[in-house]
Amino acid sequence: VVGLGPGDPGLLTPQAERALRAADVVLGYDAYLEALRPLRLPGELRGSPIGAEAERAALALELAAAGRRVVLVSSGDAGVYGMASLVLETAERAPGVEVEVVPGVTAALSAAALLGAPLGHDFACVSLSDLLTPWPVIERRLEAAGQGDFVVALYNPLSKRRTWQLPRARDLLLQHRPAETPVGLVDRAYRAGARAWLTALGELTGAGVGMETLLIVGNSRTRVVNGRLVTPRGYGER
Amino acid sequence: VVGLGPGDPGLLTPQAERALRAADVVLGYDAYLEALRPLRLPGELRGSPIGAEAERAALALELAAAGRRVVLVSSGDAGVYGMASLVLETAERAPGVEVEVVPGVTAALSAAALLGAPLGHDFACVSLSDLLTPWPVIERRLEAAGQGDFVVALYNPLSKRRTWQLPRARDLLLQHRPAETPVGLVDRAYRAGARAWLTALGELTGAGVGMETLLIVGNSRTRVVNGRLVTPRGYGER
Repeated sequence: VVGLGPGDPGLLTPQAERALRAADVVLGYDAYLEALRPLRLPGELRGSPIGAEAERAALALELAAAGRRVVLVSSGDAGVYGMASLVLETAERAPGVEVEVVPGVTAALSAAALLGAPLGHDFACVSLSDLLTPWPVIERRLEAAGQGDFVVALYNPLSKRRTWQLPRARDLLLQHRPAETPVGLVDRAYRAGARAWLTALGELTGAGVGMETLLIVGNSRTRVVNGRLVTPRGYGER
Repeated sequence: VVGLGPGDPGLLTPQAERALRAADVVLGYDAYLEALRPLRLPGELRGSPIGAEAERAALALELAAAGRRVVLVSSGDAGVYGMASLVLETAERAPGVEVEVVPGVTAALSAAALLGAPLGHDFACVSLSDLLTPWPVIERRLEAAGQGDFVVALYNPLSKRRTWQLPRARDLLLQHRPAETPVGLVDRAYRAGARAWLTALGELTGAGVGMETLLIVGNSRTRVVNGRLVTPRGYGER
């Protein structure tokens, strides 16, 4: 199970590329496989639509059990909201298959680099997608992140059908930090049309936010330095 | 400011390697520069001892202001408990210098890949180092992570002089989750002598834990599957 990073070949690790080149079959969401075309991989590329994750994991294990070297790809890091946990869970019923996870640059890290250094101290990653997680669980996480003064990276903030979650998350965090708290947004990090911008928590809306946007909400110490979002790595040098 | 990943050249991104090869000067902690020797970089390698971070950031900006292409390296991701935020803060007083951050595979991701997929759902990163952060701030974070049922990645768990912090963190988390909660530990991920093992939160001690160990404490849904640590990516497939 291989993480492709944000999409730029410059952020695909050599280990991930080696695994892709050694594979008999590469499985993944159609759009990710499309992005791999320039690598001219020797193995078969077998795409499937988004949403077919359980079937994809089962197919990967079935092909591997039949002796084929299979790579299943995720964007970012396959272990972070990706396919790795689903494959390992599915493999509980296929214990003969050896599963290796190749790490990658997850969206919080690629977005952070484009914004400056907002993850310089403790942070939490929270997905706003309530497709597979009950919303009360997500609220509890946001509450806790607010109470703990964590910098918060928000994954899956908004889609065509999920529009109220981001404003609701903003309002929850506003109970713990001031309206002027800086927020960084990155859309399509390290891909064509990438865009990074800053706003304040009190002014955050869904404008410009979509499936490929990652948000980073600062904590009480995060500030904007020369236009970059920075969370100091400590509370004053010794 | 470039993140080197865990240390294995297979997890150094091409973008990071390109930056290193283009540099006139590469600055960093002595041990990290030593690990770069096999790359035979054309630029000058200028090491400094650990603890001299503020001086290293100032030197990097001074050399860059004098027109040299400077790379400052961090292990993992330079933006996560690394040098990026310190450099950007220091650059506030040297606004003419252009600072770019190249992301990398941070320790939580490399450790997670070796353990299985413990970061498959929301997680928090907390550093147990109270050298630059008051301990009450760290306690507040651990409390919140416990309350929010976050998977917790613990950075800087223990050193020769910091020995009580890890047991204290364990006890705080035990107030929110059962003693049998699985914990994964990885020492020297993707480096010579790498070692990954599992224990239970109630039995966690500092045994085998050092400066290069990363711990991942499961949440209420994390479990061990075929010997791997897995946090499901959702609360049941639709």
